[in-house]
Amino acid sequence: MRIRNIKNSQEILDNCDYLITNPKDYIGNYQQLFNNSNPIYLEIGMGKGQFLLNMALKYPNINFIGVEKMSSILARAIKKIDEYNLDNLKIIRSDALELNEIFDHEIDRLFLNFSDPWPKSRHASRRLTSHIFLNIYDSIFKEENVIVQKTDNDGLFESSIVSLSTYGYTIEDISLDLHSTDIDNVETEYEEKFSQIGVKIKYLCAKKK
Amino acid sequence: MRIRNIKNSQEILDNCDYLITNPKDYIGNYQQLFNNSNPIYLEIGMGKGQFLLNMALKYPNINFIGVEKMSSILARAIKKIDEYNLDNLKIIRSDALELNEIFDHEIDRLFLNFSDPWPKSRHASRRLTSHIFLNIYDSIFKEENVIVQKTDNDGLFESSIVSLSTYGYTIEDISLDLHSTDIDNVETEYEEKFSQIGVKIKYLCAKKK
Repeated sequence: MRIRNIKNSQEILDNCDYLITNPKDYIGNYQQLFNNSNPIYLEIGMGKGQFLLNMALKYPNINFIGVEKMSSILARAIKKIDEYNLDNLKIIRSDALELNEIFDHEIDRLFLNFSDPWPKSRHASRRLTSHIFLNIYDSIFKEENVIVQKTDNDGLFESSIVSLSTYGYTIEDISLDLHSTDIDNVETEYEEKFSQIGVKIKYLCAKKK
Repeated sequence: MRIRNIKNSQEILDNCDYLITNPKDYIGNYQQLFNNSNPIYLEIGMGKGQFLLNMALKYPNINFIGVEKMSSILARAIKKIDEYNLDNLKIIRSDALELNEIFDHEIDRLFLNFSDPWPKSRHASRRLTSHIFLNIYDSIFKEENVIVQKTDNDGLFESSIVSLSTYGYTIEDISLDLHSTDIDNVETEYEEKFSQIGVKIKYLCAKKK
């Protein structure tokens, strides 16, 4: 994703009251942070925030946390989310590799939308569904691990199916053309743009007890 | 598949010495039938036999059994296989629903090539990867269940992934475009024809202990 540099990114982040600046301090206590017992859904790589924002608007009884590591991208998401006043949406600036230091068995569902495919095999471990990341996620999920993935990249999709399956996940739902199905779907910016020009969106939902 | 009717189908079948006419009599004893201890690979829906024949030629140290329920299709396969003299190829006329009466823990690998997709959801149980069939296959496999599937039908492929995964299979290898990979591949007649006009072949290999 090409992002225009926002000069006052840090200022936007500093003034955002739903950005959790010290996320490791809340480990094990995210439900208290939201002040309710609703499920918590996490998106890694929230990008410009359209998916997270529209999910939070659509499902007010679910808490949403978006994770993004790039300040400049987060700043753009914040500018969009700022137009609303949502109690069920928080964001965190972090690398996915640190998620097991941020959450302790408190996440109900994880969304991976159009993650970096890292097409070269020597970079396979960097894909967000590699066994390295699946191992990290094991300690963030509450009762059952639930991963929902969308991508337009065949290589990432194939790699994810094998990685999830060999790690012990069950593929409970899958589509090679999400938009042709009646599966409940909120689009990302990227998805909206590319599906309009005929790119087929792949989707899967995988679970592990 | 549209098959020209062969008038002397029964005569061709009657004169075929590698057609096992009483397959249930051999249950548990297929290795003796081949007179060696080589692995036995099975193809359900062998059609006109190109895959089975070329596999048997390519892998002389593996025994191959093709299953097909339609006499007229079998007759066409036999006419092709008759040009060779192969000790490692047998065929059976049977419905896949009876396979657990024919084999008892003696099959090493099962190939499902371009099976009928049965696209209507009310026919889902007729797909060769439905739980009904997976249950039948449980008693035919020797040590580990190994199913290799090829199809150009997205619906069948999606359905197979979910069915195999929820039945306890692990998806160990997958491709949305088999011919773009270096996965070892012997083409079926159908595959040869449709891949030439740009149809992408989906492939998976699933295993269960």
